[in-house]
Amino acid sequence: MRTVTYGAACSLDGFIALADGSMDWLHFTRDVQDVVAKYWATIDVMLMGRKTWEVATANAPAGGEEPSMAGITTYVFSRTLQSVDRGAHLVREDAGEFVRQLKEQPGKGICVMGGGELAQSLFAAGVIDEVGLNVHPIILGSGIPFFRDPGRRISLRLTEARVLDGGCVLMNYRVVGPAKAKSARARTASAGAAG
Amino acid sequence: MRTVTYGAACSLDGFIALADGSMDWLHFTRDVQDVVAKYWATIDVMLMGRKTWEVATANAPAGGEEPSMAGITTYVFSRTLQSVDRGAHLVREDAGEFVRQLKEQPGKGICVMGGGELAQSLFAAGVIDEVGLNVHPIILGSGIPFFRDPGRRISLRLTEARVLDGGCVLMNYRVVGPAKAKSARARTASAGAAG
Repeated sequence: MRTVTYGAACSLDGFIALADGSMDWLHFTRDVQDVVAKYWATIDVMLMGRKTWEVATANAPAGGEEPSMAGITTYVFSRTLQSVDRGAHLVREDAGEFVRQLKEQPGKGICVMGGGELAQSLFAAGVIDEVGLNVHPIILGSGIPFFRDPGRRISLRLTEARVLDGGCVLMNYRVVGPAKAKSARARTASAGAAG
Repeated sequence: MRTVTYGAACSLDGFIALADGSMDWLHFTRDVQDVVAKYWATIDVMLMGRKTWEVATANAPAGGEEPSMAGITTYVFSRTLQSVDRGAHLVREDAGEFVRQLKEQPGKGICVMGGGELAQSLFAAGVIDEVGLNVHPIILGSGIPFFRDPGRRISLRLTEARVLDGGCVLMNYRVVGPAKAKSARARTASAGAAG
């Protein structure tokens, strides 16, 4: 089964960009380039929502390869867009179900980009396997959050934590459960009582 | 000058408690007890807002020493409370200015507790010197946030990052600037010009 990863650089207060999408506070050191290059080699699919797609294409040269990169298939999830260019694929169906099926196909890892809204749906659907953060030493106060409420608790297992250049802290996690949300505990208890 | 620290255990998505104040997801391991005990020895003042005070006193035995502990002076900031019991002190004046003066008095470190609202005022006033987080391996989705928008960016310097038992990551930072709120900077600039 392919691994679905949601990761980004963020501020200590959990923002991946300012409200206008700007990220002038990012450290893009050799350390980070190394982490990104190694990760990049493990994936062949990128998933993004409409807003992230619009930011990505606004910043990429028209007609260029970006943001659909060589060897990477890009899926853009939107119910309002009519089409996407640059070799990307528009997905209008349910994101969770689409990704569930994608994971069962042969291939490399799957990367969830962006601003939290697509990730929120995918966390809710239980299809995200790994979470990675590169926490930068800054408090932004406001902006685009990395996390949005998936509607339930998600338990994680720390797989890596290390300091990168510039005082950044890289933290990687494996999703280990829709864990013990109260409702899930209640259901288990009921099942136990019934059994 | 005394050091003012704002720290807490939090989820990966930045909540220090559920909306109802519960913290059943916390790891209180030997590692954490050690960190807390060492930190506790460096302070002699605790600052908290009304809501944190109310949660703290609701959970402490009536008439007991808690949450004002031996050797620790507790200040509770509120414009609505008429008085506080248990040996604590009520502060109704501007929190930033009060803490600025407190820092100039002799004494040990000063700990800012709680739910982010007092810390928000104190970050805005530029009087917080250190920030510490013990990031737990869980996504809560919602609750009481550690950070609230202080209205400006705050640059930090990472001073410590290490893994604790249970897959927690302890991160400590020094506030490096604009450590001074705009008003304070303006005052300094004016003073410089006047001098």
